[in-house]
Amino acid sequence: MYNVTVVGLGLIGGSMAKAAKGFRDCRVYGIDTDLSVVAKAAEDGVIVNTAVNEREIVAKSDLIIVALYAKATVDFILNNQKYMKSGAVIADVCGVKTPVVYPVEAELRKDLYFVGCHPMAGRELSGYANSLGNMFCRCNFIIAATPATKRPGVEIMEEFARHIGAANIINTTPEDHDEMIAYTSQLMHVVAVALCDNEHIEKSAMYSAGSLRDCTRVAILNEELWSELFTLNKKSLTKLIDEMCASLQRIREAVDAGDKERLKTIMRGATAAKRRFLNN
Amino acid sequence: MYNVTVVGLGLIGGSMAKAAKGFRDCRVYGIDTDLSVVAKAAEDGVIVNTAVNEREIVAKSDLIIVALYAKATVDFILNNQKYMKSGAVIADVCGVKTPVVYPVEAELRKDLYFVGCHPMAGRELSGYANSLGNMFCRCNFIIAATPATKRPGVEIMEEFARHIGAANIINTTPEDHDEMIAYTSQLMHVVAVALCDNEHIEKSAMYSAGSLRDCTRVAILNEELWSELFTLNKKSLTKLIDEMCASLQRIREAVDAGDKERLKTIMRGATAAKRRFLNN
Repeated sequence: MYNVTVVGLGLIGGSMAKAAKGFRDCRVYGIDTDLSVVAKAAEDGVIVNTAVNEREIVAKSDLIIVALYAKATVDFILNNQKYMKSGAVIADVCGVKTPVVYPVEAELRKDLYFVGCHPMAGRELSGYANSLGNMFCRCNFIIAATPATKRPGVEIMEEFARHIGAANIINTTPEDHDEMIAYTSQLMHVVAVALCDNEHIEKSAMYSAGSLRDCTRVAILNEELWSELFTLNKKSLTKLIDEMCASLQRIREAVDAGDKERLKTIMRGATAAKRRFLNN
Repeated sequence: MYNVTVVGLGLIGGSMAKAAKGFRDCRVYGIDTDLSVVAKAAEDGVIVNTAVNEREIVAKSDLIIVALYAKATVDFILNNQKYMKSGAVIADVCGVKTPVVYPVEAELRKDLYFVGCHPMAGRELSGYANSLGNMFCRCNFIIAATPATKRPGVEIMEEFARHIGAANIINTTPEDHDEMIAYTSQLMHVVAVALCDNEHIEKSAMYSAGSLRDCTRVAILNEELWSELFTLNKKSLTKLIDEMCASLQRIREAVDAGDKERLKTIMRGATAAKRRFLNN
Protein backbone atom coordinates (compact mmCIF):
# COMPACT_ATOMS: atom_id res chain seq x y z
CA MET A 1 0.00 0.00 0.00
CA TYR A 2 1.32 3.43 -1.03
CA ASN A 3 0.91 6.02 1.70
CA VAL A 4 0.69 9.76 1.08
CA THR A 5 0.74 12.21 3.96
CA VAL A 6 -0.16 15.85 3.66
CA VAL A 7 1.22 18.06 6.41
CA GLY A 8 -0.84 21.20 6.94
CA LEU A 9 -4.47 20.89 5.86
CA GLY A 10 -5.07 24.51 4.90
CA LEU A 11 -6.24 25.80 1.53
CA ILE A 12 -3.37 24.23 -0.39
CA GLY A 13 -2.76 21.19 1.81
CA GLY A 14 -6.47 20.38 2.02
CA SER A 15 -6.69 20.66 -1.76
CA MET A 16 -3.60 18.45 -2.12
CA ALA A 17 -5.13 15.80 0.14
CA LYS A 18 -8.34 15.86 -1.91
CA ALA A 19 -6.45 15.79 -5.21
CA ALA A 20 -4.15 12.97 -4.07
CA LYS A 21 -7.08 10.55 -4.02
CA GLY A 22 -6.34 7.67 -6.36
CA PHE A 23 -2.62 8.38 -6.79
CA ARG A 24 -1.00 4.94 -6.93
CA ASP A 25 -4.10 3.62 -5.11
CA CYS A 26 -2.76 5.35 -2.06
CA ARG A 27 -4.09 5.91 1.41
CA VAL A 28 -4.01 9.62 2.26
CA TYR A 29 -3.09 10.74 5.77
CA GLY A 30 -3.23 14.26 7.14
CA ILE A 31 -1.39 16.12 9.87
CA ASP A 32 -2.40 19.50 11.22
CA THR A 33 -1.92 21.34 14.49
CA ASP A 34 -5.64 22.10 14.41
CA LEU A 35 -7.06 18.71 15.37
CA SER A 36 -10.61 19.74 14.47
CA VAL A 37 -9.44 20.17 10.87
CA VAL A 38 -7.93 16.68 10.93
CA ALA A 39 -11.23 15.33 12.28
CA LYS A 40 -13.20 17.17 9.59
CA ALA A 41 -10.96 15.88 6.78
CA ALA A 42 -11.31 12.33 8.15
CA GLU A 43 -15.08 12.77 8.39
CA ASP A 44 -15.10 13.99 4.77
CA GLY A 45 -13.22 10.86 3.74
CA VAL A 46 -10.33 12.97 2.48
CA ILE A 47 -7.85 11.36 4.86
CA VAL A 48 -7.82 8.00 6.65
CA ASN A 49 -6.26 8.71 10.02
CA THR A 50 -6.70 5.28 11.58
CA ALA A 51 -3.40 5.74 13.35
CA VAL A 52 -3.70 8.72 15.64
CA ASN A 53 0.00 8.83 16.22
CA GLU A 54 1.61 11.35 13.89
CA ARG A 55 4.98 9.75 14.25
CA GLU A 56 3.57 6.48 12.93
CA ILE A 57 1.98 8.28 10.03
CA VAL A 58 5.28 9.92 9.10
CA ALA A 59 7.10 6.58 9.50
CA LYS A 60 4.91 4.74 7.01
CA SER A 61 4.63 7.47 4.39
CA ASP A 62 6.01 6.90 0.90
CA LEU A 63 5.26 10.50 -0.07
CA ILE A 64 5.06 13.41 2.35
CA ILE A 65 3.72 16.69 0.99
CA VAL A 66 4.47 19.53 3.36
CA ALA A 67 2.01 22.40 2.85
CA LEU A 68 3.14 24.76 5.60
CA TYR A 69 4.61 28.26 5.46
CA ALA A 70 8.21 28.37 4.28
CA LYS A 71 10.12 28.41 7.58
CA ALA A 72 7.69 25.96 9.19
CA THR A 73 8.21 23.67 6.18
CA VAL A 74 11.98 23.56 6.67
CA ASP A 75 11.54 22.99 10.41
CA PHE A 76 8.99 20.21 9.97
CA ILE A 77 11.11 18.28 7.50
CA LEU A 78 14.40 18.58 9.36
CA ASN A 79 12.91 17.96 12.81
CA ASN A 80 10.99 14.87 11.71
CA GLN A 81 13.33 13.34 9.17
CA LYS A 82 14.52 10.86 11.77
CA TYR A 83 11.10 9.19 11.67
CA MET A 84 10.88 8.98 7.91
CA LYS A 85 11.09 5.76 5.93
CA SER A 86 14.20 5.24 3.85
CA GLY A 87 13.42 6.08 0.23
CA ALA A 88 10.48 8.31 1.08
CA VAL A 89 9.80 11.30 -1.16
CA ILE A 90 9.26 14.62 0.58
CA ALA A 91 7.90 17.59 -1.33
CA ASP A 92 7.12 21.13 -0.27
CA VAL A 93 4.71 23.45 -2.07
CA CYS A 94 5.93 26.87 -0.94
CA GLY A 95 5.77 29.98 -3.07
CA VAL A 96 9.50 30.61 -2.56
CA LYS A 97 12.06 27.96 -3.30
CA THR A 98 15.62 29.13 -2.55
CA PRO A 99 14.98 29.63 1.22
CA VAL A 100 13.37 26.19 1.45
CA VAL A 101 15.20 23.89 -0.93
CA TYR A 102 18.79 24.69 0.07
CA PRO A 103 18.36 24.51 3.87
CA VAL A 104 16.46 21.22 3.52
CA GLU A 105 18.88 19.62 1.08
CA ALA A 106 21.85 20.70 3.19
CA GLU A 107 20.71 18.77 6.22
CA LEU A 108 18.47 16.00 4.93
CA ARG A 109 19.35 12.31 5.32
CA LYS A 110 20.82 11.02 2.09
CA ASP A 111 18.34 8.14 1.80
CA LEU A 112 15.39 10.54 1.52
CA TYR A 113 14.26 12.26 -1.68
CA PHE A 114 13.36 15.91 -1.32
CA VAL A 115 11.74 17.82 -4.19
CA GLY A 116 10.93 21.54 -4.06
CA CYS A 117 7.61 22.11 -5.81
CA HIS A 118 5.27 24.99 -6.48
CA PRO A 119 1.87 24.12 -7.87
CA MET A 120 0.67 27.54 -9.07
CA ALA A 121 -2.88 27.79 -7.87
CA GLY A 122 -4.83 29.49 -5.13
CA ARG A 123 -7.84 31.57 -4.32
CA GLU A 124 -8.64 34.62 -2.20
CA LEU A 125 -9.77 32.41 0.65
CA SER A 126 -7.90 30.26 3.09
CA GLY A 127 -8.26 27.18 5.25
CA TYR A 128 -9.40 23.61 4.75
CA ALA A 129 -13.03 24.72 4.42
CA ASN A 130 -12.16 26.42 1.12
CA SER A 131 -9.93 23.68 -0.27
CA LEU A 132 -10.89 22.07 -3.56
CA GLY A 133 -10.05 18.72 -5.10
CA ASN A 134 -9.74 20.37 -8.49
CA MET A 135 -7.59 23.29 -7.29
CA PHE A 136 -4.64 22.15 -9.42
CA CYS A 137 -6.50 21.28 -12.59
CA ARG A 138 -4.79 23.07 -15.49
CA CYS A 139 -2.18 24.64 -13.20
CA ASN A 140 1.49 25.21 -13.90
CA PHE A 141 3.39 22.84 -11.61
CA ILE A 142 6.93 24.02 -11.02
CA ILE A 143 9.70 21.70 -9.85
CA ALA A 144 12.74 23.61 -8.60
CA ALA A 145 15.70 21.24 -8.60
CA THR A 146 19.33 21.71 -7.66
CA PRO A 147 22.36 19.57 -8.56
CA ALA A 148 21.67 17.71 -5.28
CA THR A 149 18.05 16.89 -6.13
CA LYS A 150 17.69 13.19 -6.88
CA ARG A 151 15.95 11.98 -10.01
CA PRO A 152 13.64 9.33 -8.45
CA GLY A 153 11.99 11.98 -6.27
CA VAL A 154 11.49 14.28 -9.27
CA GLU A 155 9.90 11.43 -11.23
CA ILE A 156 7.41 10.70 -8.46
CA MET A 157 6.47 14.37 -8.25
CA GLU A 158 6.06 14.63 -12.03
CA GLU A 159 3.73 11.63 -11.86
CA PHE A 160 1.90 13.26 -8.94
CA ALA A 161 1.60 16.58 -10.82
CA ARG A 162 0.02 14.80 -13.77
CA HIS A 163 -2.33 12.96 -11.39
CA ILE A 164 -3.64 16.20 -9.83
CA GLY A 165 -4.25 17.67 -13.27
CA ALA A 166 -1.32 19.99 -13.95
CA ALA A 167 -1.39 21.48 -17.45
CA ASN A 168 2.37 22.04 -17.50
CA ILE A 169 5.27 20.70 -15.49
CA ILE A 170 8.11 23.21 -15.46
CA ASN A 171 11.55 22.04 -14.43
CA THR A 172 13.69 24.90 -13.23
CA THR A 173 16.04 25.98 -10.44
CA PRO A 174 15.15 27.61 -7.10
CA GLU A 175 16.86 30.81 -8.20
CA ASP A 176 15.01 31.11 -11.50
CA HIS A 177 11.74 30.21 -9.81
CA ASP A 178 12.14 32.92 -7.21
CA GLU A 179 13.05 35.57 -9.73
CA MET A 180 10.11 34.75 -11.99
CA ILE A 181 7.61 34.36 -9.16
CA ALA A 182 8.62 37.73 -7.76
CA TYR A 183 7.15 39.14 -10.96
CA THR A 184 4.25 36.86 -11.88
CA SER A 185 2.85 36.53 -8.39
CA GLN A 186 4.45 38.64 -5.67
CA LEU A 187 4.56 41.93 -7.59
CA MET A 188 0.89 41.46 -8.53
CA HIS A 189 0.01 41.06 -4.87
CA VAL A 190 2.11 44.11 -3.95
CA VAL A 191 0.33 46.17 -6.60
CA ALA A 192 -3.12 44.98 -5.55
CA VAL A 193 -2.35 45.89 -1.95
CA ALA A 194 -0.94 49.28 -2.92
CA LEU A 195 -4.02 50.03 -5.06
CA CYS A 196 -6.29 49.32 -2.09
CA ASP A 197 -4.10 51.48 0.15
CA ASN A 198 -6.00 54.55 -1.07
CA GLU A 199 -8.97 56.29 0.49
CA HIS A 200 -10.74 56.49 -2.87
CA ILE A 201 -11.61 52.81 -2.69
CA GLU A 202 -14.14 53.52 0.05
CA LYS A 203 -16.24 55.59 -2.35
CA SER A 204 -15.64 53.52 -5.46
CA ALA A 205 -18.44 51.00 -5.54
CA MET A 206 -20.71 53.09 -7.77
CA TYR A 207 -17.89 54.32 -9.98
CA SER A 208 -16.33 51.08 -11.05
CA ALA A 209 -16.57 48.66 -13.91
CA GLY A 210 -14.33 45.61 -14.11
CA SER A 211 -10.81 47.05 -13.97
CA LEU A 212 -10.75 47.95 -10.26
CA ARG A 213 -12.25 44.58 -9.36
CA ASP A 214 -9.70 42.64 -11.42
CA CYS A 215 -6.59 44.67 -10.61
CA THR A 216 -7.28 44.30 -6.89
CA ARG A 217 -8.63 40.74 -6.83
CA VAL A 218 -5.62 39.40 -4.93
CA ALA A 219 -5.63 42.23 -2.37
CA ILE A 220 -7.64 39.89 -0.16
CA LEU A 221 -4.75 37.79 1.02
CA ASN A 222 -3.39 35.81 3.92
CA GLU A 223 -1.03 38.37 5.44
CA GLU A 224 0.85 35.79 7.51
CA LEU A 225 1.73 33.81 4.39
CA TRP A 226 2.44 36.69 2.05
CA SER A 227 4.51 38.77 4.47
CA GLU A 228 6.79 35.75 4.81
CA LEU A 229 6.95 35.13 1.06
CA PHE A 230 7.74 38.80 0.37
CA THR A 231 10.54 39.05 2.92
CA LEU A 232 12.07 35.72 1.90
CA ASN A 233 12.33 36.95 -1.67
CA LYS A 234 13.50 40.44 -0.79
CA LYS A 235 16.14 40.92 -3.45
CA SER A 236 14.04 40.05 -6.49
CA LEU A 237 10.91 41.72 -5.17
CA THR A 238 12.44 45.08 -4.21
CA LYS A 239 14.11 45.27 -7.63
CA LEU A 240 10.74 44.70 -9.31
CA ILE A 241 8.98 47.28 -7.14
CA ASP A 242 11.67 49.77 -8.18
CA GLU A 243 11.11 48.92 -11.84
CA MET A 244 7.35 49.28 -11.34
CA CYS A 245 7.78 52.73 -9.81
CA ALA A 246 10.06 53.73 -12.67
CA SER A 247 7.42 52.62 -15.20
CA LEU A 248 4.74 54.53 -13.32
CA GLN A 249 6.97 57.61 -13.31
CA ARG A 250 7.47 57.40 -17.08
CA ILE A 251 3.70 57.33 -17.54
CA ARG A 252 3.20 60.11 -14.99
CA GLU A 253 5.66 62.37 -16.79
CA ALA A 254 4.00 61.80 -20.15
CA VAL A 255 0.55 62.48 -18.66
CA ASP A 256 1.82 65.62 -16.96
CA ALA A 257 3.43 66.83 -20.18
CA GLY A 258 0.23 66.08 -22.11
CA ASP A 259 2.43 63.99 -24.39
CA LYS A 260 -0.07 61.66 -26.04
CA GLU A 261 2.46 60.29 -28.51
CA ARG A 262 4.77 59.14 -25.72
CA LEU A 263 1.82 57.62 -23.87
CA LYS A 264 0.71 55.79 -26.99
CA THR A 265 4.21 54.36 -27.46
CA ILE A 266 4.25 53.08 -23.86
CA MET A 267 0.73 51.67 -24.23
CA ARG A 268 1.48 49.96 -27.53
CA GLY A 269 4.52 48.29 -25.94
CA ALA A 270 2.47 47.05 -22.99
CA THR A 271 -0.40 45.81 -25.14
CA ALA A 272 2.00 43.96 -27.44
CA ALA A 273 3.82 42.38 -24.46
CA LYS A 274 0.51 41.28 -22.94
CA ARG A 275 -0.60 39.77 -26.24
CA ARG A 276 2.66 37.82 -26.56
CA PHE A 277 2.18 36.60 -22.98
CA LEU A 278 -1.35 35.40 -23.83
CA ASN A 279 -0.11 33.67 -26.98
CA ASN A 280 2.82 31.97 -25.27
CA MET B 1 -42.00 58.38 -34.02
CA TYR B 2 -39.10 58.81 -31.56
CA ASN B 3 -35.74 58.94 -33.28
CA VAL B 4 -32.45 58.01 -31.63
CA THR B 5 -29.14 58.65 -33.37
CA VAL B 6 -25.85 57.20 -32.27
CA VAL B 7 -22.80 59.08 -33.53
CA GLY B 8 -19.72 56.87 -33.71
CA LEU B 9 -20.44 53.17 -34.13
CA GLY B 10 -17.42 51.79 -32.33
CA LEU B 11 -17.40 49.41 -29.39
CA ILE B 12 -19.46 51.70 -27.16
CA GLY B 13 -21.54 53.41 -29.87
CA GLY B 14 -22.30 50.12 -31.60
CA SER B 15 -23.36 48.64 -28.27
CA MET B 16 -25.47 51.73 -27.56
CA ALA B 17 -27.22 51.42 -30.93
CA LYS B 18 -27.94 47.74 -30.25
CA ALA B 19 -29.11 48.43 -26.69
CA ALA B 20 -31.31 51.36 -27.77
CA LYS B 21 -33.64 48.98 -29.61
CA GLY B 22 -37.13 49.30 -28.20
CA PHE B 23 -36.52 52.55 -26.30
CA ARG B 24 -39.77 54.50 -26.69
CA ASP B 25 -40.44 52.37 -29.79
CA CYS B 26 -37.73 54.39 -31.46
CA ARG B 27 -36.04 54.18 -34.81
CA VAL B 28 -32.27 54.03 -34.35
CA TYR B 29 -29.97 55.86 -36.77
CA GLY B 30 -26.20 55.69 -36.93
CA ILE B 31 -23.48 58.03 -38.08
CA ASP B 32 -19.87 57.05 -38.55
CA THR B 33 -17.00 58.30 -40.66
CA ASP B 34 -16.39 54.68 -41.67
CA LEU B 35 -19.26 54.13 -44.10
CA SER B 36 -18.68 50.38 -44.22
CA VAL B 37 -19.51 50.24 -40.51
CA VAL B 38 -22.73 52.17 -41.15
CA ALA B 39 -23.58 49.71 -43.91
CA LYS B 40 -22.83 46.73 -41.66
CA ALA B 41 -24.97 48.09 -38.81
CA ALA B 42 -27.83 48.70 -41.24
CA GLU B 43 -27.41 45.20 -42.67
CA ASP B 44 -27.53 43.83 -39.10
CA GLY B 45 -30.80 45.68 -38.51
CA VAL B 46 -29.17 47.70 -35.73
CA ILE B 47 -29.81 51.02 -37.47
CA VAL B 48 -32.36 52.10 -40.09
CA ASN B 49 -30.51 54.56 -42.26
CA THR B 50 -33.22 55.14 -44.84
CA ALA B 51 -32.11 58.74 -45.11
CA VAL B 52 -28.52 58.76 -46.31
CA ASN B 53 -28.14 62.40 -45.49
CA GLU B 54 -26.54 62.81 -42.08
CA ARG B 55 -27.85 66.31 -41.71
CA GLU B 56 -31.41 65.02 -42.09
CA ILE B 57 -30.74 62.32 -39.51
CA VAL B 58 -29.47 64.89 -37.03
CA ALA B 59 -32.41 67.18 -37.77
CA LYS B 60 -35.04 64.60 -36.95
CA SER B 61 -33.38 63.10 -33.87
CA ASP B 62 -35.09 63.34 -30.49
CA LEU B 63 -32.07 61.81 -28.77
CA ILE B 64 -28.49 61.98 -30.05
CA ILE B 65 -25.91 59.84 -28.30
CA VAL B 66 -22.40 60.91 -29.22
CA ALA B 67 -19.95 58.05 -28.73
CA LEU B 68 -16.77 59.66 -30.00
CA TYR B 69 -13.50 60.50 -28.23
CA ALA B 70 -13.72 63.47 -25.89
CA LYS B 71 -12.50 66.31 -28.12
CA ALA B 72 -14.31 64.92 -31.16
CA THR B 73 -17.48 64.74 -29.08
CA VAL B 74 -17.33 68.45 -28.21
CA ASP B 75 -16.60 69.31 -31.84
CA PHE B 76 -19.40 67.20 -33.24
CA ILE B 77 -22.02 68.64 -30.91
CA LEU B 78 -21.03 72.28 -31.30
CA ASN B 79 -20.45 72.09 -35.06
CA ASN B 80 -23.76 70.38 -35.74
CA GLN B 81 -26.04 71.95 -33.18
CA LYS B 82 -27.44 74.25 -35.83
CA TYR B 83 -29.14 71.26 -37.47
CA MET B 84 -30.64 69.87 -34.30
CA LYS B 85 -34.34 69.89 -33.50
CA SER B 86 -35.50 72.19 -30.72
CA GLY B 87 -35.96 70.16 -27.54
CA ALA B 88 -33.61 67.37 -28.64
CA VAL B 89 -31.60 65.60 -25.97
CA ILE B 90 -27.87 65.18 -26.63
CA ALA B 91 -25.77 62.87 -24.49
CA ASP B 92 -22.11 62.00 -24.57
CA VAL B 93 -20.61 58.83 -23.11
CA CYS B 94 -16.98 59.87 -22.58
CA GLY B 95 -14.80 58.60 -19.76
CA VAL B 96 -13.95 62.16 -18.71
CA LYS B 97 -16.67 64.69 -18.01
CA THR B 98 -15.22 68.09 -17.06
CA PRO B 99 -13.46 68.64 -20.43
CA VAL B 100 -16.65 67.70 -22.30
CA VAL B 101 -19.60 68.95 -20.27
CA TYR B 102 -18.43 72.53 -19.64
CA PRO B 103 -17.29 73.38 -23.20
CA VAL B 104 -20.52 71.94 -24.60
CA GLU B 105 -22.83 73.65 -22.10
CA ALA B 106 -21.03 76.96 -22.57
CA GLU B 107 -21.83 77.14 -26.27
CA LEU B 108 -24.92 75.01 -26.78
CA ARG B 109 -28.22 76.46 -27.97
CA LYS B 110 -30.52 77.00 -25.01
CA ASP B 111 -33.38 74.99 -26.54
CA LEU B 112 -31.29 71.79 -26.59
CA TYR B 113 -30.79 69.45 -23.61
CA PHE B 114 -27.26 68.23 -23.11
CA VAL B 115 -26.49 65.50 -20.55
CA GLY B 116 -22.97 64.28 -19.76
CA CYS B 117 -23.11 60.52 -19.22
CA HIS B 118 -20.67 57.70 -18.53
CA PRO B 119 -22.03 54.19 -18.77
CA MET B 120 -19.28 52.21 -17.05
CA ALA B 121 -18.71 49.24 -19.28
CA GLY B 122 -16.20 48.08 -21.83
CA ARG B 123 -14.07 45.23 -22.95
CA GLU B 124 -10.46 44.71 -24.12
CA LEU B 125 -11.56 44.91 -27.73
CA SER B 126 -12.70 47.74 -29.91
CA GLY B 127 -14.84 48.54 -32.89
CA TYR B 128 -18.38 47.82 -34.02
CA ALA B 129 -17.54 44.15 -34.65
CA ASN B 130 -17.07 43.65 -30.90
CA SER B 131 -20.09 45.67 -29.77
CA LEU B 132 -22.74 43.94 -27.71
CA GLY B 133 -26.40 44.69 -27.12
CA ASN B 134 -26.02 43.67 -23.49
CA MET B 135 -22.81 45.65 -22.87
CA PHE B 136 -24.56 47.88 -20.33
CA CYS B 137 -26.51 45.24 -18.46
CA ARG B 138 -25.80 45.65 -14.73
CA CYS B 139 -23.48 48.61 -15.34
CA ASN B 140 -23.11 51.74 -13.25
CA PHE B 141 -24.51 54.58 -15.35
CA ILE B 142 -23.13 57.93 -14.27
CA ILE B 143 -24.83 61.22 -15.07
CA ALA B 144 -22.57 64.21 -14.47
CA ALA B 145 -24.73 67.31 -14.19
CA THR B 146 -23.89 70.94 -13.59
CA PRO B 147 -26.15 73.77 -12.41
CA ALA B 148 -26.76 74.46 -16.11
CA THR B 149 -27.90 70.91 -16.90
CA LYS B 150 -31.65 70.86 -17.54
CA ARG B 151 -33.89 68.38 -15.76
CA PRO B 152 -35.90 67.09 -18.78
CA GLY B 153 -32.70 65.89 -20.44
CA VAL B 154 -31.57 64.11 -17.28
CA GLU B 155 -34.95 62.39 -17.00
CA ILE B 156 -34.73 61.06 -20.55
CA MET B 157 -31.23 59.74 -19.91
CA GLU B 158 -32.30 58.08 -16.65
CA GLU B 159 -35.09 56.39 -18.57
CA PHE B 160 -32.59 55.38 -21.27
CA ALA B 161 -30.14 54.05 -18.67
CA ARG B 162 -32.86 51.85 -17.20
CA HIS B 163 -33.80 50.70 -20.70
CA ILE B 164 -30.27 49.53 -21.51
CA GLY B 165 -30.09 47.62 -18.22
CA ALA B 166 -28.08 49.82 -15.85
CA ALA B 167 -27.89 48.42 -12.32
CA ASN B 168 -27.32 51.84 -10.79
CA ILE B 169 -27.82 55.39 -11.98
CA ILE B 170 -25.40 57.71 -10.20
CA ASN B 171 -26.08 61.43 -10.28
CA THR B 172 -22.93 63.42 -9.66
CA THR B 173 -20.90 66.37 -10.95
CA PRO B 174 -18.25 66.40 -13.69
CA GLU B 175 -15.59 67.20 -11.08
CA ASP B 176 -16.49 64.34 -8.73
CA HIS B 177 -16.80 61.97 -11.67
CA ASP B 178 -13.35 62.81 -12.97
CA GLU B 179 -11.72 62.46 -9.57
CA MET B 180 -13.34 59.09 -8.87
CA ILE B 181 -12.77 57.72 -12.36
CA ALA B 182 -9.09 58.65 -12.17
CA TYR B 183 -8.91 56.04 -9.43
CA THR B 184 -11.43 53.36 -10.34
CA SER B 185 -10.56 53.20 -14.01
CA GLN B 186 -7.61 55.30 -15.18
CA LEU B 187 -5.17 54.31 -12.42
CA MET B 188 -6.02 50.64 -13.00
CA HIS B 189 -5.13 51.05 -16.66
CA VAL B 190 -1.91 52.88 -15.78
CA VAL B 191 -0.94 50.08 -13.40
CA ALA B 192 -1.77 47.34 -15.90
CA VAL B 193 0.36 49.09 -18.52
CA ALA B 194 3.24 49.62 -16.09
CA LEU B 195 3.12 45.95 -15.03
CA CYS B 196 3.46 44.88 -18.67
CA ASP B 197 6.30 47.36 -19.18
CA ASN B 198 8.72 44.74 -17.79
CA GLU B 199 10.83 42.22 -19.63
CA HIS B 200 9.81 39.45 -17.22
CA ILE B 201 6.40 39.21 -18.86
CA GLU B 202 8.00 37.64 -21.92
CA LYS B 203 9.04 34.59 -19.88
CA SER B 204 6.03 34.46 -17.59
CA ALA B 205 3.57 32.15 -19.32
CA MET B 206 4.71 29.03 -17.46
CA TYR B 207 5.15 30.79 -14.12
CA SER B 208 1.76 32.36 -13.71
CA ALA B 209 -1.50 31.57 -12.03
CA GLY B 210 -4.40 34.04 -12.05
CA SER B 211 -2.91 37.16 -10.51
CA LEU B 212 -0.77 38.27 -13.46
CA ARG B 213 -3.63 37.64 -15.85
CA ASP B 214 -6.13 39.62 -13.78
CA CYS B 215 -3.88 42.51 -12.76
CA THR B 216 -2.94 43.11 -16.39
CA ARG B 217 -6.30 42.36 -18.05
CA VAL B 218 -6.82 45.97 -19.10
CA ALA B 219 -3.28 46.40 -20.47
CA ILE B 220 -4.76 45.56 -23.86
CA LEU B 221 -6.26 48.93 -24.56
CA ASN B 222 -7.09 51.41 -27.27
CA GLU B 223 -4.12 53.75 -26.97
CA GLU B 224 -5.77 56.55 -28.95
CA LEU B 225 -8.70 56.65 -26.52
CA TRP B 226 -6.79 56.17 -23.30
CA SER B 227 -3.97 58.59 -24.04
CA GLU B 228 -6.63 61.27 -24.52
CA LEU B 229 -8.51 60.30 -21.35
CA PHE B 230 -5.29 60.31 -19.31
CA THR B 231 -4.11 63.70 -20.50
CA LEU B 232 -7.57 65.28 -20.12
CA ASN B 233 -7.65 64.20 -16.48
CA LYS B 234 -4.03 65.07 -15.74
CA LYS B 235 -4.44 66.64 -12.32
CA SER B 236 -6.37 63.82 -10.66
CA LEU B 237 -4.41 61.08 -12.39
CA THR B 238 -0.89 62.35 -11.63
CA LYS B 239 -1.88 62.78 -7.97
CA LEU B 240 -3.06 59.17 -7.85
CA ILE B 241 0.08 57.86 -9.55
CA ASP B 242 2.11 59.71 -6.91
CA GLU B 243 0.02 58.12 -4.15
CA MET B 244 0.45 54.70 -5.77
CA CYS B 245 4.24 55.12 -5.88
CA ALA B 246 4.22 56.20 -2.24
CA SER B 247 2.25 53.08 -1.28
CA LEU B 248 4.64 50.91 -3.27
CA GLN B 249 7.58 52.57 -1.51
CA ARG B 250 6.09 51.85 1.92
CA ILE B 251 5.78 48.19 0.99
CA ARG B 252 9.25 48.15 -0.52
CA GLU B 253 10.79 49.57 2.65
CA ALA B 254 9.04 47.02 4.84
CA VAL B 255 10.15 44.17 2.55
CA ASP B 256 13.70 45.46 2.49
CA ALA B 257 13.75 45.78 6.29
CA GLY B 258 12.31 42.27 6.63
CA ASP B 259 9.58 43.89 8.74
CA LYS B 260 6.78 41.36 8.57
CA GLU B 261 4.67 43.13 11.19
CA ARG B 262 4.64 46.34 9.16
CA LEU B 263 3.80 44.37 6.01
CA LYS B 264 0.96 42.59 7.79
CA THR B 265 -0.47 45.92 8.95
CA ILE B 266 -0.41 47.28 5.39
CA MET B 267 -1.93 44.06 4.03
CA ARG B 268 -4.67 43.96 6.65
CA GLY B 269 -5.62 47.53 5.79
CA ALA B 270 -5.79 46.73 2.07
CA THR B 271 -7.75 43.52 2.58
CA ALA B 272 -10.25 45.29 4.84
CA ALA B 273 -10.66 48.16 2.35
CA LYS B 274 -11.21 45.70 -0.49
CA ARG B 275 -13.81 43.82 1.55
CA ARG B 276 -15.67 47.05 2.33
CA PHE B 277 -15.60 47.90 -1.37
CA LEU B 278 -17.07 44.50 -2.24
CA ASN B 279 -19.76 44.90 0.40
CA ASN B 280 -20.73 48.44 -0.62
